[in-house]
Amino acid sequence: MFFEGSEKKVEITIDGDKMSLLEDLPQSFWAQMVAQCGAMIVSQMSQPNCKAFLLSESSLFVWHDRLLLITCGQTRLVNAVEYFVEKVDKQLILQLIYQRKNEYFASAQSSSFVDDVRLLNRHMPGVAYRFGELYSHHNYLYHLDNDYQSSMDATTCELLAYQISRSASAHLTAPGLTGLEIRQFLQLDKLVPGFTLDDHVFSPFGYSLNAIKGNSYLTIHVTPQSTSSYVSVEANFDLLAKAPLLLEILAPACFDLVCFNQPQFAQKAAQMVPKQYVSKELVHKTLGIGLDVCFANYIRPQHDFGQPTHLDLSSEHRVF
Amino acid sequence: MFFEGSEKKVEITIDGDKMSLLEDLPQSFWAQMVAQCGAMIVSQMSQPNCKAFLLSESSLFVWHDRLLLITCGQTRLVNAVEYFVEKVDKQLILQLIYQRKNEYFASAQSSSFVDDVRLLNRHMPGVAYRFGELYSHHNYLYHLDNDYQSSMDATTCELLAYQISRSASAHLTAPGLTGLEIRQFLQLDKLVPGFTLDDHVFSPFGYSLNAIKGNSYLTIHVTPQSTSSYVSVEANFDLLAKAPLLLEILAPACFDLVCFNQPQFAQKAAQMVPKQYVSKELVHKTLGIGLDVCFANYIRPQHDFGQPTHLDLSSEHRVF
Repeated sequence: MFFEGSEKKVEITIDGDKMSLLEDLPQSFWAQMVAQCGAMIVSQMSQPNCKAFLLSESSLFVWHDRLLLITCGQTRLVNAVEYFVEKVDKQLILQLIYQRKNEYFASAQSSSFVDDVRLLNRHMPGVAYRFGELYSHHNYLYHLDNDYQSSMDATTCELLAYQISRSASAHLTAPGLTGLEIRQFLQLDKLVPGFTLDDHVFSPFGYSLNAIKGNSYLTIHVTPQSTSSYVSVEANFDLLAKAPLLLEILAPACFDLVCFNQPQFAQKAAQMVPKQYVSKELVHKTLGIGLDVCFANYIRPQHDFGQPTHLDLSSEHRVF
Repeated sequence: MFFEGSEKKVEITIDGDKMSLLEDLPQSFWAQMVAQCGAMIVSQMSQPNCKAFLLSESSLFVWHDRLLLITCGQTRLVNAVEYFVEKVDKQLILQLIYQRKNEYFASAQSSSFVDDVRLLNRHMPGVAYRFGELYSHHNYLYHLDNDYQSSMDATTCELLAYQISRSASAHLTAPGLTGLEIRQFLQLDKLVPGFTLDDHVFSPFGYSLNAIKGNSYLTIHVTPQSTSSYVSVEANFDLLAKAPLLLEILAPACFDLVCFNQPQFAQKAAQMVPKQYVSKELVHKTLGIGLDVCFANYIRPQHDFGQPTHLDLSSEHRVF
């Protein structure tokens, strides 16, 4: 079954002295915003300083002065962004960072990153970059071109794992698999001890998790089908320290690290990435808005010949 | 400037006892066939057993009982195939092999490989494979599902070089560059000594070459722009032996080898691929039609951090 795991992501920071995203906007606003991109809210949990929504395609986190919306599949995230920008006083938006990972079923998307950026630029001028070579894994990033300076201690990190091991894929596509079994398989007790969890097992496949604790969050999205398996993990704590555990569980053929304001990224990555992987892409830039961005792609060299994938043309679904 | 270098390719073998593609079809047939996919003939040369056409997007070779049509950009190669199948008695078609490399501006294509195969399957039943993982470089291949057996001495090999060195890209985008200068840069005297050449320098960038000698051919297509540089080389002689020379000239960040009926591919590739590259994909299968296919992707590990690519959003062209 065809599913585009690669995510689109937006992070919007507003002036918290003038408005609170938690207090001044009703539940219906978030449901509407999510609906704009073709997703819906599946589940949610609240803590005093954070609301976390599990979506039919990924996640939405809302804090007092900040939101993070991640969507995958064929969602049109830019439409949700446009909805927010049109409903909320633009003057209150301090920064907006919009990202898209390169897609693997790009022809099924309703827009390209460039299309999206041209739309955003009609509302607010920004600049855009491609982190990584065109012919390799890469991540597109757009941010508003203004004087806002991000806080250097606002660290976030993504680990995007592609083509996980056959055994991990088999485990995560087992019929009747429960959320508890997936949590155990992913060793969430070690990954997010003491966090409050909200997760959902999709039918026939797929798993999403939000985890929050104080100001910390982690979110995991799993597309487990062996022909196009993909697992994304994002958190605002030291995810690099957890990389060895995640990579041992998932054993992907390749993976990306996308880190923002991660101190000593190069040294930490060199320590934490298992020796069987080699770096294919290493890109770094401190953006004008004080945001330090590192993008790295690692691959596991292949030494033995494998078989091609036979494509089942009889399927009604687009499978490849 | 945006240009999809990745090629689509079809090779059709007919029953040469019943028809000759060289003698029984007029020039207008080939012009019409090429026009179907949105390309046009730029130049051509003939030898007794081969006609070679340079196209606005790549090349067409016609032999007595076989044709090879390669197109790039946003061409709709499947429409040219459909034209051929509808105009020529289907019973005369012994084999048809249709390939597409994964594209890097896939959202700009008018169809996906699966769409194409579904169209072809309405005319003639076939089978399809993906050589290489979804999340890496890969090559889709379709062939008719029949009793035809290909000749094991019909060897062809493609070398597809991505993100060539800055100096090679700078050389190949120099203003006023002539065909002679490009031939010298590519060392064609060593690559195809004694071959008859036909080449074309495109404006503002781009270069295509056809070379023939007896039953041997080689074709080169160059997309030199540094943000999306790509060079494809295909030949039906021992191209692996020429790989060290080509890789020294182009110094790509990564490259693919796609070989058909290449004896001892694994050993030869291990000898010929420079040590700074590691293999990311290695796929092999002998198809039911007696065609031995190897697909390999090699990357050069990166050790130093580079800068992201700044995207010029003011351009009218899609640049990334």
